[in-house]
Amino acid sequence: MTSSHLRPTPAADNQPTDFSSSPLLAKYPRHNMQDGAAIKVGVLGATGTVGQRFITLLANHPWFVLHALGASPRSAGKRYPVAVNWKQTSRLPAVAREMIVRECKPELFADCAVVFSGLDADVAGEIEAAFRAADLAVFSNAKNYRRDPLVPLIVPYVNPSHFSILRQQQLAHSPPLKKGFIITNANCSTTGCVIPLSALEKAFGPLESLLVTTMQAISGGGYPGVPSLDIMDNIVPFISGEEEKMEWEMLKILGGIVKNDDGARAFDMHARTPLRVSASCNRVPVIDGHTACISVRFSRRPPPSPQQVREALVGFTCDAQTLGCPSAPRHAISVHEEPDRPQPRLDRYYQDGAGVSVGRIRQCQVLDIKFVVLANNVSIGAATSSIINAELAVLKGVVGN
Amino acid sequence: MTSSHLRPTPAADNQPTDFSSSPLLAKYPRHNMQDGAAIKVGVLGATGTVGQRFITLLANHPWFVLHALGASPRSAGKRYPVAVNWKQTSRLPAVAREMIVRECKPELFADCAVVFSGLDADVAGEIEAAFRAADLAVFSNAKNYRRDPLVPLIVPYVNPSHFSILRQQQLAHSPPLKKGFIITNANCSTTGCVIPLSALEKAFGPLESLLVTTMQAISGGGYPGVPSLDIMDNIVPFISGEEEKMEWEMLKILGGIVKNDDGARAFDMHARTPLRVSASCNRVPVIDGHTACISVRFSRRPPPSPQQVREALVGFTCDAQTLGCPSAPRHAISVHEEPDRPQPRLDRYYQDGAGVSVGRIRQCQVLDIKFVVLANNVSIGAATSSIINAELAVLKGVVGN
Amino acid sequence: MTSSHLRPTPAADNQPTDFSSSPLLAKYPRHNMQDGAAIKVGVLGATGTVGQRFITLLANHPWFVLHALGASPRSAGKRYPVAVNWKQTSRLPAVAREMIVRECKPELFADCAVVFSGLDADVAGEIEAAFRAADLAVFSNAKNYRRDPLVPLIVPYVNPSHFSILRQQQLAHSPPLKKGFIITNANCSTTGCVIPLSALEKAFGPLESLLVTTMQAISGGGYPGVPSLDIMDNIVPFISGEEEKMEWEMLKILGGIVKNDDGARAFDMHARTPLRVSASCNRVPVIDGHTACISVRFSRRPPPSPQQVREALVGFTCDAQTLGCPSAPRHAISVHEEPDRPQPRLDRYYQDGAGVSVGRIRQCQVLDIKFVVLANNVSIGAATSSIINAELAVLKGVVGN
Amino acid sequence: MTSSHLRPTPAADNQPTDFSSSPLLAKYPRHNMQDGAAIKVGVLGATGTVGQRFITLLANHPWFVLHALGASPRSAGKRYPVAVNWKQTSRLPAVAREMIVRECKPELFADCAVVFSGLDADVAGEIEAAFRAADLAVFSNAKNYRRDPLVPLIVPYVNPSHFSILRQQQLAHSPPLKKGFIITNANCSTTGCVIPLSALEKAFGPLESLLVTTMQAISGGGYPGVPSLDIMDNIVPFISGEEEKMEWEMLKILGGIVKNDDGARAFDMHARTPLRVSASCNRVPVIDGHTACISVRFSRRPPPSPQQVREALVGFTCDAQTLGCPSAPRHAISVHEEPDRPQPRLDRYYQDGAGVSVGRIRQCQVLDIKFVVLANNVSIGAATSSIINAELAVLKGVVGN
Repeated sequence: MTSSHLRPTPAADNQPTDFSSSPLLAKYPRHNMQDGAAIKVGVLGATGTVGQRFITLLANHPWFVLHALGASPRSAGKRYPVAVNWKQTSRLPAVAREMIVRECKPELFADCAVVFSGLDADVAGEIEAAFRAADLAVFSNAKNYRRDPLVPLIVPYVNPSHFSILRQQQLAHSPPLKKGFIITNANCSTTGCVIPLSALEKAFGPLESLLVTTMQAISGGGYPGVPSLDIMDNIVPFISGEEEKMEWEMLKILGGIVKNDDGARAFDMHARTPLRVSASCNRVPVIDGHTACISVRFSRRPPPSPQQVREALVGFTCDAQTLGCPSAPRHAISVHEEPDRPQPRLDRYYQDGAGVSVGRIRQCQVLDIKFVVLANNVSIGAATSSIINAELAVLKGVVGN
Repeated sequence: MTSSHLRPTPAADNQPTDFSSSPLLAKYPRHNMQDGAAIKVGVLGATGTVGQRFITLLANHPWFVLHALGASPRSAGKRYPVAVNWKQTSRLPAVAREMIVRECKPELFADCAVVFSGLDADVAGEIEAAFRAADLAVFSNAKNYRRDPLVPLIVPYVNPSHFSILRQQQLAHSPPLKKGFIITNANCSTTGCVIPLSALEKAFGPLESLLVTTMQAISGGGYPGVPSLDIMDNIVPFISGEEEKMEWEMLKILGGIVKNDDGARAFDMHARTPLRVSASCNRVPVIDGHTACISVRFSRRPPPSPQQVREALVGFTCDAQTLGCPSAPRHAISVHEEPDRPQPRLDRYYQDGAGVSVGRIRQCQVLDIKFVVLANNVSIGAATSSIINAELAVLKGVVGN
Repeated sequence: MTSSHLRPTPAADNQPTDFSSSPLLAKYPRHNMQDGAAIKVGVLGATGTVGQRFITLLANHPWFVLHALGASPRSAGKRYPVAVNWKQTSRLPAVAREMIVRECKPELFADCAVVFSGLDADVAGEIEAAFRAADLAVFSNAKNYRRDPLVPLIVPYVNPSHFSILRQQQLAHSPPLKKGFIITNANCSTTGCVIPLSALEKAFGPLESLLVTTMQAISGGGYPGVPSLDIMDNIVPFISGEEEKMEWEMLKILGGIVKNDDGARAFDMHARTPLRVSASCNRVPVIDGHTACISVRFSRRPPPSPQQVREALVGFTCDAQTLGCPSAPRHAISVHEEPDRPQPRLDRYYQDGAGVSVGRIRQCQVLDIKFVVLANNVSIGAATSSIINAELAVLKGVVGN
Repeated sequence: MTSSHLRPTPAADNQPTDFSSSPLLAKYPRHNMQDGAAIKVGVLGATGTVGQRFITLLANHPWFVLHALGASPRSAGKRYPVAVNWKQTSRLPAVAREMIVRECKPELFADCAVVFSGLDADVAGEIEAAFRAADLAVFSNAKNYRRDPLVPLIVPYVNPSHFSILRQQQLAHSPPLKKGFIITNANCSTTGCVIPLSALEKAFGPLESLLVTTMQAISGGGYPGVPSLDIMDNIVPFISGEEEKMEWEMLKILGGIVKNDDGARAFDMHARTPLRVSASCNRVPVIDGHTACISVRFSRRPPPSPQQVREALVGFTCDAQTLGCPSAPRHAISVHEEPDRPQPRLDRYYQDGAGVSVGRIRQCQVLDIKFVVLANNVSIGAATSSIINAELAVLKGVVGN
């Protein structure tokens, strides 16, 4: 790995993320995959749907070994199979069958180099802060810190360059942290969309505006989540807070990081070329897989043709792939030529849910280009993103044993 | 009825439709509701889903009496209950239980003042033409003649002014027709959208562009139509020909009629202020009711506010109501204040499916205003439109006993 | 009305229910429909799904007028439209739009001649008891008192003869009640099945055993009820307590009432000819309408033929019809000849959901006869039953103004 | 492998299937897995849903190599990806991407040691007969020959002993066949049920009667199959021919083979202890996975307890496992202790769909024991069965290169 791989994709931070002189890197040299030392990880919110997904993905992970499971006091002390209402289509992994659920207290996760949080938003704020304060590295799926000006909101195929804010996050803590931080992944509907959008910005320069209408799966609402009486034979054209999240998160993710005169870094929110985003979010009777119809207008005139867009998406590669994240898919974006794809039921398992599928790339009569995106909200839209973020962190040397 | 009620809603044809000197009107004076004479009607494609819907709606109609049912030669000669695979949630109406299905030949429908066609597109072209040639008035749900430059494409709450092209259609026939013509209704997804859009143009002047993403019910695909394996737990982001239909039909319907120098009338396709329409059509696992997320940009600067749009939609009335069409709903548009409405399962039965529901009226970050529309595709999106069109034709004196 | 109409249908209580000498009847002479005096009714649990259904049905009731709505303290004091999350496909009735929700306290319902309870089981026990103690007539949809040896469990087309236990219920209270009592309706899955089963016992004598497998709609689980993640593209072969309820309730309903030596009445639980019932209950992804596959064995040898069973079901009439209950359907049982009916989506609205549909009557290779039953769980399976029970009570003179 | 492994499971044919003196075995000695020679296989009906499933399963098979694909003349000559409308959730396997579809003519499959048929019943009869006549070994998923008195109907975990009829099938042909035969698998709903039923007969002796109510997935109806309008929010309590198939096939499969005086073998249809089977079949809105509620009565008095039944099912092993069929699951039956399992969405992928799941084992009030069975109709209920049947045939030496 050289730092040249780490150039930010579409955005303003053109200084390579320089960990080489970082006290972090001094302390945690780049993980050496050859040494075979497994990295101990914990999962907070282990009995919830995102937690179950973390456990499923971590059960056979080449680097990470499941070491501690945390849940509510009600579950703490029980064997995991007793505490959980397992709702995955795969069986409960052997590794978790004998584990005893712990309370979500930092001291009980002290030997975890990485802590994944699948906590609900109502408790995530306090617990994740406590874990960070205990100098633990937290990779969160919750929304609580996404808008924090020092917390990177990372979609692993898009903006790993935002890792560069971490040092500042640590120094802002009192006392300054050595290893602890919080990294969040993005909202499930944001994640699927920004991946192809970042590919377009990488290829054709900044977008000027985009209109997205989502059709989101029920699993995005958690468990018990959406009542069946609300969604069978129905559409709910509203998901509380979702449109605001998409419109805001996209700017943070697709934007870069600027350095102020005093050397402090800050997210620029795509400010050099303002990007207008309009989202309409719908809940649909689909179990897994968020579909989005997107229309974009480029700053560049004339805009790229549908064929050029197609080629840019087909050719897209990202740091998570080139750096060698084990959970990164071979193709982050699959481009469909069939007129009626992608479809959630047929395409959500693409690359085990770690890839996104794009289809129907065509001219838009109002903006420039329109297309359809499908992303598996429970994989790349949730736990998978956090895990690849953690893999990136290992490769960048900011976490490790 | 005075001709002043017939002013075209948003468009260029400001000349009142003048039937007063029409040979039609001389022959068929305005239907006098007091005389109690029922108007005999026939239904083509009577065993299909649209045909079944026509029969259900006509069973208790105050003016129209079901007189003849036509279907394929395979069904002809059978009692209707034997020929049909009845799929409505209401029982087969008594009036149809003893009727014998006829072949779709004009001579077998000679005494019908109105013929409704629920024929499939593959046979509608030829049969409807033959019926018109036999001087019969055809109200078609099929797509075949929608693009014909002399056939009006009428959404009854929007452009009854387009009736004015009919005389020209009759004269273009050789020999000229006295009573026969074809009127089509619009595609089910077009219909729901143009109703609020026409209300906006009526209130605020022409639209400049609009972006619509639909989530369309399976019943829009007919029977057997969409295989369950294609749509359960799934979205199909493509409906063959649908986007083109929406983009084209909206221009014809929302446009006006212009008179050329030689006095000939022609559809102007919204030409005075070009309107750009971009449609993305999706099939979703909903039984009845098409939902659409629409963003619009007005020509007028500054554009109306969400509140002004709300008031314009709430206050919308149309000729079908003021003229007294018995099937016209009391409110053509229902505006929802709840954040999560309209929803197909809860709102598709509004006004027996003859009204459309609009909700979530709000600012769009890219265009001006966005909102959600729901229309019952099997009611106002299909048979109900044709029936109100025929009611309008009676009130305008162009059909009758 | 003569008492001869009141003979119990299949069971042991052959003494006509004699209200003529009842203090009840003295005080509340048979409701005279001609006097036009409306009967004031209250609804407990008015914001819940069953409560909403009560309100919908009562809005246009010829006898009953909605007078008071009760709900939790959280809702009390609010206008009903504000307190409720209205989930019906019909609009909130005008009568309820200005009503202020009350707490569920008897003194706030003192002038209601009838109180319908749609309360959840966790609060129904205490509240219904308090209402009865305040001498109010409670018609409950909750399960709490169904097993009470003095509370009749009445399916209105089956066992109105069980009203005869009421006096004893009143006398058992301390101090004895004059007007107050509790009548429960049956579990939604029980109700649909016992209607045709009682018709069979009426025609062919006692059943000896029956095996029923249900496929129950999600609305049977209330709101929010069944999570969509549990039931989309799925079957849950278990509904807590449901099989026990069906197996027990059927015996109480299909059984008669016996008089002990001391004159006390008691439910005989079909004891003279023991009936074995085996139920398997499944939740299926259907919104409304419980389907049941039933196999029965008769005591009578040889058993009736499928054709005889068909005729018995077609010819079935019941007291609720002959006495003139306004909500009783013209046909309590609809028998289908088509091989693939009844189906919930097509047949659940039969008679506005007050009728049950039976089809596929045929030989069973193991027991005698098998068939399929469909009943609308939110209508005849819930609120509609309670309302017809109250209508019966009016006709029998046990309630009234 | 010794013939002792081949003892029939529950039935009358106690003579080991003796292939040792068979001309078949002489010509095709037992497949030696060590020699690494792949066995060439063909798939008929390759573009259909069952055909697609065969291709998916065969793509990575350790013994079989996909050699020829057959479909209708319309598809013949095209590259497979062009001819097929691929509907699997996994991508089209690489091995099939360059194959050219052939017509279903025996001479085009002459070098296939095994031919799998996923043909539709309307063409399977003639084509499969032609293939057999050309001395090819056909493993059919079609229903056409299931009732043939010389064709074994084999559920691989249940009655591989029925292979013993094959020689007679070959000799009955004129001229006698050397390698060619037809073996069918069972109807998808039959298969799932007979597996635990055979385990019960193996453990506790013959069943006397059984009542089964199925809830069958839409994929059982093929593609396009069940129209979405028929099954969304609905149950169809009828599947044409299905109940008859289940009632008949169970007898053939659970029965044994008897030798007549002249040495001829014949299926005894469970005749020594007549078994009464009553099936009620329903189509439900589930994509994959047939659920069945089964009640059984044993001949043995007293019958086994639920706990004994549980243990018998847990302990069940079969020849397909002990002989070493590579596609046989480690556990053919998974017994659930949770009260609400098995569920199709969660359990249909158990052992890649090759295992069946049983739950809710409990007393039946009418017969002896009842329980719920779930089987993946597209795996063990279809292609997987045929493939394991072919693996058994290899191990028994009746097919091979």
